[in-house]
Amino acid sequence: MLVSSPPNLRYLTNYAGSNGLLLLTTNEAYFFTDPRYGTEASKSISCKVQVAKGPLIEAAAALIKRKRLKKIGFETGWLKHEEFAKLKEAMPLGASLVPVGRIIEQQRMIKSATEIALIRKSVLVNSEAHARTLRRVRSGVREQDIAAELEFQMRMLGAEKASFDTIVAAGDRTALPHARPSTRRLEENELLLIDMGASVEGYASDMTRMAYAGTPPRQIRELYRAVLEAQLAAIDAVRPGVLAYKVDVAARNVLKRHKLDRVFIHSTGHGLGLEIHEPPRLGKKDQTRLEPGMAITIEPGAYVEGVGGVRIEDTVLVTEDGCEVLTPTSKELVKL
Amino acid sequence: MLVSSPPNLRYLTNYAGSNGLLLLTTNEAYFFTDPRYGTEASKSISCKVQVAKGPLIEAAAALIKRKRLKKIGFETGWLKHEEFAKLKEAMPLGASLVPVGRIIEQQRMIKSATEIALIRKSVLVNSEAHARTLRRVRSGVREQDIAAELEFQMRMLGAEKASFDTIVAAGDRTALPHARPSTRRLEENELLLIDMGASVEGYASDMTRMAYAGTPPRQIRELYRAVLEAQLAAIDAVRPGVLAYKVDVAARNVLKRHKLDRVFIHSTGHGLGLEIHEPPRLGKKDQTRLEPGMAITIEPGAYVEGVGGVRIEDTVLVTEDGCEVLTPTSKELVKL
Repeated sequence: MLVSSPPNLRYLTNYAGSNGLLLLTTNEAYFFTDPRYGTEASKSISCKVQVAKGPLIEAAAALIKRKRLKKIGFETGWLKHEEFAKLKEAMPLGASLVPVGRIIEQQRMIKSATEIALIRKSVLVNSEAHARTLRRVRSGVREQDIAAELEFQMRMLGAEKASFDTIVAAGDRTALPHARPSTRRLEENELLLIDMGASVEGYASDMTRMAYAGTPPRQIRELYRAVLEAQLAAIDAVRPGVLAYKVDVAARNVLKRHKLDRVFIHSTGHGLGLEIHEPPRLGKKDQTRLEPGMAITIEPGAYVEGVGGVRIEDTVLVTEDGCEVLTPTSKELVKL
Repeated sequence: MLVSSPPNLRYLTNYAGSNGLLLLTTNEAYFFTDPRYGTEASKSISCKVQVAKGPLIEAAAALIKRKRLKKIGFETGWLKHEEFAKLKEAMPLGASLVPVGRIIEQQRMIKSATEIALIRKSVLVNSEAHARTLRRVRSGVREQDIAAELEFQMRMLGAEKASFDTIVAAGDRTALPHARPSTRRLEENELLLIDMGASVEGYASDMTRMAYAGTPPRQIRELYRAVLEAQLAAIDAVRPGVLAYKVDVAARNVLKRHKLDRVFIHSTGHGLGLEIHEPPRLGKKDQTRLEPGMAITIEPGAYVEGVGGVRIEDTVLVTEDGCEVLTPTSKELVKL
């Protein structure tokens, strides 16, 4: 099998560069990279490392020929059409390419003790960066400066970077679930949404918290309480054996009672680990059975145009007898 | 034609989210996204915006059926094998999929005045962030803290983020061309390599500079001078009509004279814009003819195990009568 997806490469070999390819045969493992990564890869990867000057796919095809391999699996969810065509072209006669689904992703869903330890570290770094930054946020600050400070703090605390582009949205922009931080300033009597995650040795955390500059009016307090209720209901539904979509139903039912289900326009959560979005998806259709060792987010939201949006998100670990909310940050609506 | 590559989508529609798909017919343009981006997309994109709840590829296939389109181009360098298979499956009988090469990337190689203005801004932000940070770097500082400060400064200066993971390497780690910042501290009498870029409204800059903690010994000074000589020779070779690989030859010839060509283990540069790596590639094989409006990097390096590595990199614009080095940062070996 050929493995070309960067997170899968990191999972299997610990290689974290941008150009790698792994060929697994029944009894050998070859790792291909270019000269920029040659020294590092030879030292840190326990496979046979091959430094190729041209496209890695061609180097792998040459080895496939030499080894007379007959059936080569490839990651259909990762390999680009062009690379597939190139690989097909370079394959020896009589050899065939077999599309392989997300079998490594499947395995990655259940985190090992080492992986859980890294996710815990990532979550703590993230929450501490949030706390250090929020203490210094007042109305008048620009969204992008808050984002810069959050990411600076997480790096000073040991993250190698943010696990995704930090979302900071103020006022009416909170109603855009994926707003990019802008030069807009947080004004008095406005909501502030922060959605952030750290990456620690490749492992992601993910958290969303809300704040309000001033004393929140009733409408905002009610919106916040409804989303929090939905979030707690979803967490309550997380335990081994439960189908992923049932957790989504739990959150959606609460929001329906508050007539907010139509403005809950995304799914309740997703797996995370080496990628910020991994299976399972806690959405309407996912039939995955939750198992101990899965790391997921629980993040219902409600987005009311003209009023604002609220999302509350924790990183959660499925345990033997239920779940553990890893995120230590308090879930009150913070008053700035 | 279906466009699914995020930088191409941004180029054509200004959409900068993570889930978009564009269907261009001879006289219409449809943009597909999911509900998270619906509000923003409808406001900012001048195509017909279709908010789909399921996979965008399926929504596009349904429209292809309805419109009875017969020949659909797709980006073979971007579409994953799995998406290709899904699309093929969903296509109406009699319709065919046509692999299309990098025609949008081809067009993107020549930057418009607006694009050049953004790249200029990105370069300036980047150099200023470098200057502000370097002033405060002394031996004893960790690589990762320098990287955190560089990225913080660029964001405070208006970048939305770094255009790639900032590289900070101290001492012997400078010999790894793509070192990730670690907890290693810069010690007295050590080299420091910083390779950084900002992203401003999507547009990248890219720069590498070297510093030395103390007074550099002769061996380092000579290594530095050789790489600088190669970099200046390569810049000198940049003008309209020149083939990309000739610029690489210019750098390589200088390093050969200094017996350093064997430790120059990457190409001399690459195009940049909405992506940090775009065509052309200033490498051994690229036959692209340089044209006014191309933005490229010039970045030869020499990596001597046990001694250290040196790379010097500018962002350069091809002009009507030669080129303009956009990067304003001085190219002396800075003494810290």
